[in-house]
Amino acid sequence: MFERLLHHPFMSTVALRESGAEALIDAMLSVELALAEAEQARGIIPPDTAEAMREALSTLALDADDLFQGCVDGGNMAIPFVSQCKAALPPALVPFFHRGATSQDLVDTALMLVLRPRLTRSGALLSDALSAGRDVMMAHQETPMVGRTLMQQALPISFGAKVAQWLYGLALARERLEEARASHLLVQFGGAVGVHSGLDEVGLSIMDDMAHRLGLSAPILPWHTQRQPILLLAGAMDAVAVAVEKIATDVALLCQTEIGELSEPAGDGVGGSSSMPHKRNPVACARIRAAARHIHADASLISTSGASPLERGLGEWHAEWQPLLAMAALLEGALESTCALLQGLEVHQERMQANLQLTGGAIMAEPATRLLSEVMSAAEARALAREAALEAQTTGQDLASVLMKDARVNQHISHDDVARVVAPASYLGSSLAQVDRMDAWLSSH
Amino acid sequence: MFERLLHHPFMSTVALRESGAEALIDAMLSVELALAEAEQARGIIPPDTAEAMREALSTLALDADDLFQGCVDGGNMAIPFVSQCKAALPPALVPFFHRGATSQDLVDTALMLVLRPRLTRSGALLSDALSAGRDVMMAHQETPMVGRTLMQQALPISFGAKVAQWLYGLALARERLEEARASHLLVQFGGAVGVHSGLDEVGLSIMDDMAHRLGLSAPILPWHTQRQPILLLAGAMDAVAVAVEKIATDVALLCQTEIGELSEPAGDGVGGSSSMPHKRNPVACARIRAAARHIHADASLISTSGASPLERGLGEWHAEWQPLLAMAALLEGALESTCALLQGLEVHQERMQANLQLTGGAIMAEPATRLLSEVMSAAEARALAREAALEAQTTGQDLASVLMKDARVNQHISHDDVARVVAPASYLGSSLAQVDRMDAWLSSH
Amino acid sequence: MFERLLHHPFMSTVALRESGAEALIDAMLSVELALAEAEQARGIIPPDTAEAMREALSTLALDADDLFQGCVDGGNMAIPFVSQCKAALPPALVPFFHRGATSQDLVDTALMLVLRPRLTRSGALLSDALSAGRDVMMAHQETPMVGRTLMQQALPISFGAKVAQWLYGLALARERLEEARASHLLVQFGGAVGVHSGLDEVGLSIMDDMAHRLGLSAPILPWHTQRQPILLLAGAMDAVAVAVEKIATDVALLCQTEIGELSEPAGDGVGGSSSMPHKRNPVACARIRAAARHIHADASLISTSGASPLERGLGEWHAEWQPLLAMAALLEGALESTCALLQGLEVHQERMQANLQLTGGAIMAEPATRLLSEVMSAAEARALAREAALEAQTTGQDLASVLMKDARVNQHISHDDVARVVAPASYLGSSLAQVDRMDAWLSSH
Amino acid sequence: MFERLLHHPFMSTVALRESGAEALIDAMLSVELALAEAEQARGIIPPDTAEAMREALSTLALDADDLFQGCVDGGNMAIPFVSQCKAALPPALVPFFHRGATSQDLVDTALMLVLRPRLTRSGALLSDALSAGRDVMMAHQETPMVGRTLMQQALPISFGAKVAQWLYGLALARERLEEARASHLLVQFGGAVGVHSGLDEVGLSIMDDMAHRLGLSAPILPWHTQRQPILLLAGAMDAVAVAVEKIATDVALLCQTEIGELSEPAGDGVGGSSSMPHKRNPVACARIRAAARHIHADASLISTSGASPLERGLGEWHAEWQPLLAMAALLEGALESTCALLQGLEVHQERMQANLQLTGGAIMAEPATRLLSEVMSAAEARALAREAALEAQTTGQDLASVLMKDARVNQHISHDDVARVVAPASYLGSSLAQVDRMDAWLSSH
Repeated sequence: MFERLLHHPFMSTVALRESGAEALIDAMLSVELALAEAEQARGIIPPDTAEAMREALSTLALDADDLFQGCVDGGNMAIPFVSQCKAALPPALVPFFHRGATSQDLVDTALMLVLRPRLTRSGALLSDALSAGRDVMMAHQETPMVGRTLMQQALPISFGAKVAQWLYGLALARERLEEARASHLLVQFGGAVGVHSGLDEVGLSIMDDMAHRLGLSAPILPWHTQRQPILLLAGAMDAVAVAVEKIATDVALLCQTEIGELSEPAGDGVGGSSSMPHKRNPVACARIRAAARHIHADASLISTSGASPLERGLGEWHAEWQPLLAMAALLEGALESTCALLQGLEVHQERMQANLQLTGGAIMAEPATRLLSEVMSAAEARALAREAALEAQTTGQDLASVLMKDARVNQHISHDDVARVVAPASYLGSSLAQVDRMDAWLSSH
Repeated sequence: MFERLLHHPFMSTVALRESGAEALIDAMLSVELALAEAEQARGIIPPDTAEAMREALSTLALDADDLFQGCVDGGNMAIPFVSQCKAALPPALVPFFHRGATSQDLVDTALMLVLRPRLTRSGALLSDALSAGRDVMMAHQETPMVGRTLMQQALPISFGAKVAQWLYGLALARERLEEARASHLLVQFGGAVGVHSGLDEVGLSIMDDMAHRLGLSAPILPWHTQRQPILLLAGAMDAVAVAVEKIATDVALLCQTEIGELSEPAGDGVGGSSSMPHKRNPVACARIRAAARHIHADASLISTSGASPLERGLGEWHAEWQPLLAMAALLEGALESTCALLQGLEVHQERMQANLQLTGGAIMAEPATRLLSEVMSAAEARALAREAALEAQTTGQDLASVLMKDARVNQHISHDDVARVVAPASYLGSSLAQVDRMDAWLSSH
Repeated sequence: MFERLLHHPFMSTVALRESGAEALIDAMLSVELALAEAEQARGIIPPDTAEAMREALSTLALDADDLFQGCVDGGNMAIPFVSQCKAALPPALVPFFHRGATSQDLVDTALMLVLRPRLTRSGALLSDALSAGRDVMMAHQETPMVGRTLMQQALPISFGAKVAQWLYGLALARERLEEARASHLLVQFGGAVGVHSGLDEVGLSIMDDMAHRLGLSAPILPWHTQRQPILLLAGAMDAVAVAVEKIATDVALLCQTEIGELSEPAGDGVGGSSSMPHKRNPVACARIRAAARHIHADASLISTSGASPLERGLGEWHAEWQPLLAMAALLEGALESTCALLQGLEVHQERMQANLQLTGGAIMAEPATRLLSEVMSAAEARALAREAALEAQTTGQDLASVLMKDARVNQHISHDDVARVVAPASYLGSSLAQVDRMDAWLSSH
Repeated sequence: MFERLLHHPFMSTVALRESGAEALIDAMLSVELALAEAEQARGIIPPDTAEAMREALSTLALDADDLFQGCVDGGNMAIPFVSQCKAALPPALVPFFHRGATSQDLVDTALMLVLRPRLTRSGALLSDALSAGRDVMMAHQETPMVGRTLMQQALPISFGAKVAQWLYGLALARERLEEARASHLLVQFGGAVGVHSGLDEVGLSIMDDMAHRLGLSAPILPWHTQRQPILLLAGAMDAVAVAVEKIATDVALLCQTEIGELSEPAGDGVGGSSSMPHKRNPVACARIRAAARHIHADASLISTSGASPLERGLGEWHAEWQPLLAMAALLEGALESTCALLQGLEVHQERMQANLQLTGGAIMAEPATRLLSEVMSAAEARALAREAALEAQTTGQDLASVLMKDARVNQHISHDDVARVVAPASYLGSSLAQVDRMDAWLSSH
């Protein structure tokens, strides 16, 4: 399968191992048994039936390849699964198996069961990422670097303030993911047309009980063609993808040879180039950005497939399955990479410092103008700052010295005052306060 | 502009009127004045400056066309706006205008201000739609109709149960929209690189104060390249779009000439065809479905543009503006149509009844099988039900009479019992209970 | 792997078998050997080197699982592949292996090689579908059915004319696919930064020669970050997806129980429902529509990843791999289903006839109006046609008889003339001519 | 309208002016008159009718705002247009107006007519861009710069070779656009259900004649729900968008302050920042990248709306209109910006040279290794090259001098030979040949 080399490398290996065909089959079996137990508790099926089923199916060896053709013919994995289970059951139990259920009940609930540990782990990875990022943020609360808008040097910030932005994104996205996990991993049980045909009103109580037995949330009603829960789960995963994509994009840009302010963590065989020994490729960033693009496409596919006709989708429902699990595994992979990135990020403060000086202080023309405005008109101040910055950049002198050559300046302001004002480290705005605020918010969050 | 005839017909005219270029200009002015007030309150700019600005700009007549070229050259609408405002201000006020702000502060906050009444109105329309839908649901709690999976007749449901599904989707989406409106319409204020350069830590307090003055929420930090709030707003609007698209899809399918169970509300000049007098086109459904498709594309565009590089997007940010307001106006239009649809929906119960009989009772083979299983083996029961259904459908006899011709049946079960079991109205499952549950949930919600 | 049960059922099993990890490994090996041969022919590497490499690697047993971790660490499948090949080669050959090549050369060219048989087979399946569809079209050139706009009955067409539309879409999409296959399956060879570093101008000749040896097209230049070829291939596959999605959508709608004009081919275990024996689900249509949705998402992902930065994508390139092969396998699966659908389509002419009568002739109000206009004013004619249609529909009488009751009519027009004009079969417009034209076009195409 | 400030700045002003509501109305009128002429020529309507219509409607003053409500009620712009035209015509002409046509005929053909000059102009702009880019390419055929993969410095290329890649993309995309323009701007004419009801086989001949009269291509059949032509047009525009997005992405990256190899053309008020005089923002790149993102979303919307049900879309068709014209206007805007960018691009060769030296020659470790391999083992050569590169980078010495300190080197190779080999300008691979090949291809193309 081509996915192994073309898609799975962007996914978590843990997720791949735990959300494969076997996990889906196990999950479908759990659903059937929870259904049987709930029905038995209500006298729909005879006493001890659920236990007998569990026993009879405990050694069931279904093979995904055998199920495959059944999926093609029947249109979903539940049809051959039920058929093979029935073949494996003692005849007396068969009438009580899958009683009142439909394929969609099985597939949707199994997807939720397989998704649950994925979202749990993604949540944990997000916490790890936040924790590692917070260490970076605090360590660099006062580390000056240049802020860049439209990728042009603009004005100084602290690196900590940049990291605070990353964490803000991660934390907001985690909120969505946690809410989705806590409230929207729902059992689906409605029977053939969603109204528990043949079970009447006890159907709703069975649905609620199944949720309880399976550790899922109970919906108000079956949601066979009301796909808000799926949409919400996909949206939450997409939000996390945007948050990590932002980090990977920033890191990759700051790893550029000419900028050199960050490096990805080094490691054996990671990011190296055999023919170009000087290169250290930001491979983790590439993986994260590839995964994020896939997740966006998956989320879009789920959104455009959200409105199913009547009581079951005719392709719309079927199109949801793969993106749901793929985006979970991709997200988990991207989060693993983000954790490693933040835990081992190499920060080159000397390059940050050097880049701040790159324009000879021209990036400090704004504070210089403010200072000069105290002793001349705003228009004069702006003109002088602009000229001085240009001279500093072309001649290699520092901006303060150039400014001090002007009589309007040196008669009123000391070199020290000018130098202090045009020092990037003195112009970090609210950077430090932002780090403090983010730190406090994360503590209370 | 081509949008007038090709895109605006799917939008709300109220939204179009209230979120045009003038509204954007007014919003930018509000942001500048709130900034001035907040800065004045902290002594950043002199006393009475904000009032003087408000006075001086009260008669400001900016024209969107004049701003247009400035948008092209500068890259966003804030640049020419600020420049024209400064030209209109007394020179003494100029240095205090837009102090410490950047284009993105103005654009992002203005978008939030223009979006606010839109989301409020969409929320109100959602309530109207829920209210109208609830009336339909209660009125048809027990109205039998056939449930259809993969667009094939399957088993009976009540029309009320179908409407309950619609309402479930609407209500869940409304929750998301309300949460987004209440918590994610944020002020943006961070200055050139997001750290309040020149304002230092008071920048955060100005940001908080601006939020208060403008009636927006205050973020923890500026969010210039951390776009979770935009993503969340877009996701919430997309969720509502899916909810109404589902309704429109169902209604359009049930309006088909051959099904005829529903009709869109009639009206002068609405949905008629001059050349084909018998047609009543489901025009509202077409409009809703077109709007929903556009909204999905807008949401996807916002998701793929979510990760901006460094301290400002280079196309990513710019790509967000139009979809954000377009999807709000489209959604409001779709909700207006949905309200009208639900308020005036024509329900043809006789056609629902006729369609239930269309297969001669074959759709009741499942309950028939259950009944027959009481007097013969499951396999025999299934075979007899299948044969009888086929005979009923081809001969036009009713299923009960066909079944009663079989000796295994007529010796053990009365015609009345058979007829009762195979009557669709007796096989509505949890339909009534679902309506009750939805009704109670909506009351408490 | 979850794909087996959730994604692969919509794909071609042939495609899955032939485009797996082994196929990718074989393709990479072919690329390396073609490179060695081309270099050997130009004296870049010593005589007989390529043959020795082929021999040495003929028993190479690479395992996709072993390659997987190398993909993760290195960022693509070429890095571990080259490394394992070098380990398997006699040391003397190592310096000549992969000479002047880069990972992207290997990956891009291997994808093209794996894609080639897929597009060939999809082309053949398209021909089969066209052939089967043409038989249906010719057989039903004159079969009247109702045309439906906005899913409302409008006016008669022939079923052949509808099928002609389907074939028009298939044939136009086949043109694009054939052109893409013939001209845009390109070799990629450019070395580390796309300019054949170390090989100088002979690099271009090696590139051309490799194309020849591998049976691919030669590009003008390497296309490492100029992704028009990928975009064009994806666009062509998406076009075919739209063409089959249209057919599946129409068939599914016409299979609705209440319409019943078509049925999917029957087959053991296909589309059945164990609990609802009367149902025959349009499973092939569901599969096709699910596949088409996935293909659209894949095409969109490739489009948004099209602009790679500088000399290699940083996530953009990586994001292309999976959708390219996935969409090919999905398309092939959808085409297999489309062929089966068209080859075995059950056409229920009697239902087409019955549906034409469903409105009591109201759909013939337009031609009736035209006829009546000969003996009364246009406004009167329209009014009478409308009233008569309504009466016919509600009373069950035929439209001609109702019209003949009006004195303005029966005094001037014979019943036969009226009956002829309001007979659907007499109002098929250009249906027959369209079938003839399509038939002729397909012959010459 | 919010589009004016949020969307139109990314569009061509020429396109906006020429494809507005008036242009759509004019186009619909042209379609009606061409239809009348074609029908008159075939005796369907009386002699001189078309001329009389033209005369009567020559002073028709339709207002887009008046049409708007009609669009909402009827579902498309053709319905109120036809209705207002009929009201303006002498009663005797009314029955002959719009004869045999349907709304979709009018809307689809009008869209093609409005699109035609847009594609023509985009084609011309592409030629201008290719011409300007070719001048840059030839001027910099031999200008060395560093090639960057995953945004890391890799090996030298010539700037001309990079531009050749840009032109390759533009030229391939132009091919698609030209083919789309030449063959897929089609007339649509099929009447109510696409089979020329009431016109019979002469319908096809009217369709062909209308194409001739309107200067559009004639399809084989009407294409009311077979949307390959729309898909092909959208795909071609999207391909051009990818080509210009690639250029804008590269330019923006090379404009980064720390790289500084390119600058956007300077101009009054363009890209400046009032508060930060040192900044020159790559505003054209931002506009192009924003436009490209919108175009991708539009293309995706058209792809997912491609499969219309039965004889007319129910939202699918309606969703196509706006993206089609929006993407044309966006593309034209992006091409205008690309032309200006390429015509005025500032190339800073000294920065290219400086960046090549940034790693102290480490990027030349590959050719150094090759040279060293002549006098030591490959493993030793690789190790020495790696160490020397590191020493060169950290000490600031040049790589040749560092290598010459090693006895294994200085005993066998001259400093000049080493210096020549590690000079970037001597390691441009096929850069020059690629430029020549591209130049020749463009000449013959």
